[in-house]
Amino acid sequence: MKKQPEEEFKSEQMLNKKLSRRDMLRLTGASGLGLLLGGTGAGGLMAARQSAAKTPAASLDPAADTLPFYGAHQAGIITPAQNFLCFAAFDLTTTKLDDVKKLLKSWTEAAAALTSGSLIGNVNDNPNLPPSDTGEADGLTPSRCTLTFGVGPAFFDGRFGLAPKRPSSLADLPAFTGDSLEPQWCGGDLCVQACADDLQVAFHAIRNLARIARGTAVLRWTQEGFQRTAGADPKGATPRNLLGFKDGTGNPDATDDAEMRKVVWTSSSDGPAWMNGGTYMAVRRVRLRIEVWDRSTLSDQETTFGRHRHSGAPIGATDEFAELKLDAADASGKPVIPPDSHSALAHGDGTIKMLRRSYSYSSGMDLKTGQLDAGLLFISFQKDLLKQFVSIQQRLSKNDRLNEYMVHTGSAVFACFPGVREGGYIGEALLG
Amino acid sequence: MKKQPEEEFKSEQMLNKKLSRRDMLRLTGASGLGLLLGGTGAGGLMAARQSAAKTPAASLDPAADTLPFYGAHQAGIITPAQNFLCFAAFDLTTTKLDDVKKLLKSWTEAAAALTSGSLIGNVNDNPNLPPSDTGEADGLTPSRCTLTFGVGPAFFDGRFGLAPKRPSSLADLPAFTGDSLEPQWCGGDLCVQACADDLQVAFHAIRNLARIARGTAVLRWTQEGFQRTAGADPKGATPRNLLGFKDGTGNPDATDDAEMRKVVWTSSSDGPAWMNGGTYMAVRRVRLRIEVWDRSTLSDQETTFGRHRHSGAPIGATDEFAELKLDAADASGKPVIPPDSHSALAHGDGTIKMLRRSYSYSSGMDLKTGQLDAGLLFISFQKDLLKQFVSIQQRLSKNDRLNEYMVHTGSAVFACFPGVREGGYIGEALLG
Repeated sequence: MKKQPEEEFKSEQMLNKKLSRRDMLRLTGASGLGLLLGGTGAGGLMAARQSAAKTPAASLDPAADTLPFYGAHQAGIITPAQNFLCFAAFDLTTTKLDDVKKLLKSWTEAAAALTSGSLIGNVNDNPNLPPSDTGEADGLTPSRCTLTFGVGPAFFDGRFGLAPKRPSSLADLPAFTGDSLEPQWCGGDLCVQACADDLQVAFHAIRNLARIARGTAVLRWTQEGFQRTAGADPKGATPRNLLGFKDGTGNPDATDDAEMRKVVWTSSSDGPAWMNGGTYMAVRRVRLRIEVWDRSTLSDQETTFGRHRHSGAPIGATDEFAELKLDAADASGKPVIPPDSHSALAHGDGTIKMLRRSYSYSSGMDLKTGQLDAGLLFISFQKDLLKQFVSIQQRLSKNDRLNEYMVHTGSAVFACFPGVREGGYIGEALLG
Repeated sequence: MKKQPEEEFKSEQMLNKKLSRRDMLRLTGASGLGLLLGGTGAGGLMAARQSAAKTPAASLDPAADTLPFYGAHQAGIITPAQNFLCFAAFDLTTTKLDDVKKLLKSWTEAAAALTSGSLIGNVNDNPNLPPSDTGEADGLTPSRCTLTFGVGPAFFDGRFGLAPKRPSSLADLPAFTGDSLEPQWCGGDLCVQACADDLQVAFHAIRNLARIARGTAVLRWTQEGFQRTAGADPKGATPRNLLGFKDGTGNPDATDDAEMRKVVWTSSSDGPAWMNGGTYMAVRRVRLRIEVWDRSTLSDQETTFGRHRHSGAPIGATDEFAELKLDAADASGKPVIPPDSHSALAHGDGTIKMLRRSYSYSSGMDLKTGQLDAGLLFISFQKDLLKQFVSIQQRLSKNDRLNEYMVHTGSAVFACFPGVREGGYIGEALLG
């Protein structure tokens, strides 16, 4: 709740009410399913439910609508995906490192307010100055808002004298077969991934961070994203992408600390010390050719994914979380799951994983073609871009049957800092 | 719930659970406030709460997640605004009236499914044909989805021999002072307003209606819209626009039948018989110059609206729903609420009203300016476009202080048909 002082008491009363409501939501929706499916090892968006099943006390926490901003790692990475995303890439217009530090300190202060549901700055604003908060989230709950900050390879060019500190794996991605990148959807010195269960809350965060950056950094590109809201999905199923298929079934389990240390979080053996506890983000804006997809047969669609559409199960199976048996063959010796299907190629031999955290996007109509400009803002986190994202994407870009139905129009990578300690600031280990 | 046959039993069990959850939501959130504020006569988005307060039984209806598609009027007009909007304008590519009838019949059948949460067509699709439903809403609840259909002035040109049936007030809007319209955001032969509490559900509806129209009509323009979600706003306050001000405080009361007959619904004395029970929609895509707004002082902002930002109360008052006292003056004789403020001009002498049902939009960044392309998809419903929308907009466009902070980039008007009777089809009274 964005608190004005006179409302704190009311807002406390409301928290009690919210507790009951969240409690009820959980009883009727999420955790019932979490218990049913808890043993499957399914990760990603399943994490919320598993977490609820494993630590039911946490689910009754009245602050569950608020996710902590400070911590060892940044939030918004292994956090169960919120309903909405506003992603923004910024370019620095200053050439002074001190300005960058000042910006990151201001962003830290603002982020702490934005994620806790307070107004930025002084609530008793001087009427003769511009308000310190733009106000559109006044009265709204924190809505599990997370803000995740990173720096792109360009940040380490000559401008700030930081070239020696660039992690060796942080470089623009190689060209992939079939890429059709447009510069306006690529790159950026800095990124902010704002996620929240409410789109207005996420928008408010990006808009205010852009406002605070004025004079130091400008927006380079932005993209909103969505998935089905939790409220529309009382079963808590794996969300579907805009091709109608479940997306995230094979994600690693974000509640498994050892797995996250293996897949996501960098440690001292992985590169520069300032990234210990951080991770690398790959972002791809993938436009889906939905009009072409919609004209293909159900059988073609399922063969393309290697999964059944309704259940999400691997072809030939009935359970979404059944193992992908890539060596299974039919009577004629033909693989049941085509080796060039999306699931088969993404899985490979199963040794290389990354944590996907993508959102669908819909950006109206493409004026040139009259078709919907809709697709996926693919986001993945991994401790090594080359060994994880790049090696998987090279496999996919060459042979994936799904390539016929999509085109990669945007691309960026960012080093997402380790978490911020209270009293510290975003990127302090790099810049401090 | 998108039902596959084998799931009907489960889905019935879930409805019972949903009842408890919705019940709880209402007890903790909406209706408590409805009772507090029920006597103020505040309309628009207040309608849900007032309705809950007046007819509590309805709020416990297990089908409350589903709004009826069939009825005397179309849904999505006086319906309390859902969280999300996908708006689409279509151009007909056929010149045969029979094709148009066929399209509207197909849309009727699809709309009945989309709004009730069923898959379109046969759930046991032939795998060798394209699926009859694109599938991304499979498993999602109906999410209060409404689909509202209309025809624009262009529909009555020479192509279909319908010129004599054009309602006299259905014509392209006159140019307003300051308009900066771009053709790609204007007009359309047909419109569909899809609203739902879940964006994926609304997107799914428009995407499938566009798919069904293939060969008969093509998309002309689309725009997604949002407001704060009900879940982020346990107090059920009037939603805020992207300028941070409450929007909808002065709306007429949508639960007052007599008022709606006076303001919204056309009757036999208002024009052609085929529009009896219909209404006229004005749509304006209003880009907000939020970067300029954010640099203006709080005092300027409040003077521009004629209201206080935090409370929404008229300047000088403390209650959001206090009467706008336009003749009140301060000690020096200066009006307390500036006559050229947005509230004062929109209110006028209070005799002319329209039902507003607008959504905020955010469409990423304007590549030309590097600024956020965000604003308001203004939508209003009225029984007479000229006497209501046009007369108010002429007043506003000439003198409104808010004009400095916004630019109208899109414009369209549509005659929204009366409701569809079961067994009938959209627009039957016109085309039947």
